Amino acid sequence: MKKIISQATIDRLPLYFRTLRLAAESEDLQIISSEELGRRLDITPEQIRKDLATFGQFGRKGIGYDVRELKDKIGNILGLHKHWRLAIVGVGHLGGALANYVNFAPLGFSVVALLDKNAEIIGSEVNGIKIDSARRMKSVIRGNKVDIGVITVPASEAQNVADKLIAAGVKGIWNFAPIKLSVPPTIPIVNEDLSIGLSALSYHMTQD
Amino acid sequence: MKKIISQATIDRLPLYFRTLRLAAESEDLQIISSEELGRRLDITPEQIRKDLATFGQFGRKGIGYDVRELKDKIGNILGLHKHWRLAIVGVGHLGGALANYVNFAPLGFSVVALLDKNAEIIGSEVNGIKIDSARRMKSVIRGNKVDIGVITVPASEAQNVADKLIAAGVKGIWNFAPIKLSVPPTIPIVNEDLSIGLSALSYHMTQD
Repeated sequence: MKKIISQATIDRLPLYFRTLRLAAESEDLQIISSEELGRRLDITPEQIRKDLATFGQFGRKGIGYDVRELKDKIGNILGLHKHWRLAIVGVGHLGGALANYVNFAPLGFSVVALLDKNAEIIGSEVNGIKIDSARRMKSVIRGNKVDIGVITVPASEAQNVADKLIAAGVKGIWNFAPIKLSVPPTIPIVNEDLSIGLSALSYHMTQD
Repeated sequence: MKKIISQATIDRLPLYFRTLRLAAESEDLQIISSEELGRRLDITPEQIRKDLATFGQFGRKGIGYDVRELKDKIGNILGLHKHWRLAIVGVGHLGGALANYVNFAPLGFSVVALLDKNAEIIGSEVNGIKIDSARRMKSVIRGNKVDIGVITVPASEAQNVADKLIAAGVKGIWNFAPIKLSVPPTIPIVNEDLSIGLSALSYHMTQD
């Protein structure tokens, strides 16, 4: 499967997934219309139908989508069935917050390792996970079968951490450091920047 | 100014702003081409030219954009010149991380107040700001001239906090709780969900 799907659509898929999962598991809902899905997500039904049509024929006109079928399909597209294992490098405020973030588990992500170079916190636990020394990067990444390296160190250290994570065998990088990292083309990287959402809010507050 | 600008374009504007600001202030660069801006941001020059054309005529063909002029223009569009004042409600891991997040200040955002209902942390300081009791919401919000309320409480408390923030006079809400909040149409709200970026990474790791 190698379709071109827009980033905006990809960004909406986890929202669909989570809403469908809640509908299936908490409400035991069988069928959902694009109107109802749209109401729950504040997205137009037209947008939802367009997004879902990207992946093929879904749902039945005038009836709706099979909740579990659609949830599983979106989960497969996003790769959420793979149950990715994460290591967070840099257990400061942000790294600690991510280690405790409750929204990851329902999507199939588990934080399995924490790494830091600060001797004062190595050995202590966050959310039940012991902080390991960043010097032990390779053995920790391999021993815990880590798929995704999460970088929450300062910008000046981020490239070095990325290089070591990749050498240790991670398959993807989630980067919170405000710097563009060089990684091999085979390693997907997503750069997170919390100031983007805040700037969007500022934009809307300025227009309204 | 009431133009329709796509969310994807709005999301790229802070990236342009920060790169231009760095180019102006750290390098004293006068002119930048869409190619160079694209290289620094990993965005195609065509995309950049298209985004910027949304706001009118910029730059000179074959020469490039005036760095400071473009930075100021984008800053004005995003409302970053307004120097918004933030209050964070819920000083747990995520709230604490946001209080310490260094990427906000260069965009003109300041965290000026922290609120929590937990008596054990009320009175302590995070990044030099004292944590106030959430019971004092109204006087803290007004006394500190807070523009934006940041919600980092559990989902079950988020609507109540949003209602109180709006009653106290905030002009916008930045919500990290995984729940859709009801707010008046005059109050812009941006919902942040860290699992979206992670799901996008999972998607790319699944396709590649």
